[in-house]
Amino acid sequence: MSEPDIVTTLDADACWQLLHDHELGRLAFHLAGEVHITPINYAVDGRTLLFRTAEGNKLLGVVMHSDVAFEIDGMDDTEAWSVVLRGRARLLEGDEEHRAERVPLRPWTSTAKYNVVEIAPTEVTGRRFGLHKPWEHIQQ
Amino acid sequence: MSEPDIVTTLDADACWQLLHDHELGRLAFHLAGEVHITPINYAVDGRTLLFRTAEGNKLLGVVMHSDVAFEIDGMDDTEAWSVVLRGRARLLEGDEEHRAERVPLRPWTSTAKYNVVEIAPTEVTGRRFGLHKPWEHIQQ
Repeated sequence: MSEPDIVTTLDADACWQLLHDHELGRLAFHLAGEVHITPINYAVDGRTLLFRTAEGNKLLGVVMHSDVAFEIDGMDDTEAWSVVLRGRARLLEGDEEHRAERVPLRPWTSTAKYNVVEIAPTEVTGRRFGLHKPWEHIQQ
Repeated sequence: MSEPDIVTTLDADACWQLLHDHELGRLAFHLAGEVHITPINYAVDGRTLLFRTAEGNKLLGVVMHSDVAFEIDGMDDTEAWSVVLRGRARLLEGDEEHRAERVPLRPWTSTAKYNVVEIAPTEVTGRRFGLHKPWEHIQQ
């Protein structure tokens, strides 16, 4: 007999609840034909994500090529989960920037961060995994 | 007076020590012109990373376009850190696959994972951030 499938799919509401409950994720983006990844602080605004950024790689990447992917995850002793979002990034301009003031999105470090970027998702998927670590039992 | 810079750069040895000490990271890769991101279990082998994968998106992506980026991070109440690696991914073949048996790289779930992929880094960078969360003080 094969083992039961212990990967479960999360529905959209569960994915958005996890996105609401966290504040640190990872953004993957194109830059000059390469793929890059960087941790970002984010906040949920409606069914979009917002993050702040200074002029630099992250910003340049999403302005030149708006196709991005974003991920959060977590784990404990028995299971792990992840939520992956694909979508389009764009700089907020003018009055739109005020959206960032209504959500718990603050710069965590003293580095100045001037721009607000919105990620509008085209796809949100989530999975929960039961963890199977045979060597932990062996070592006991 | 400006605030002191509280972002510090990690040297290569510190980055590799953090890579050794963890086992869950996130892989960003190209697939059909899009950027994708997925959590992976990995292990360090020399100055490369190894991970297992079944036939599917992850594998297809790195075979068709070997340029990848990989990230690990962590945080506590006072600081966060991240290590980002860019490099080339390739499938290990034949005898090379045995490299995966010498490192603590096991499938955590019961999903069969048949292939071993090596990421040979071209660049490894790490940063440590002091955390500045003004709203936590406000809420107390």
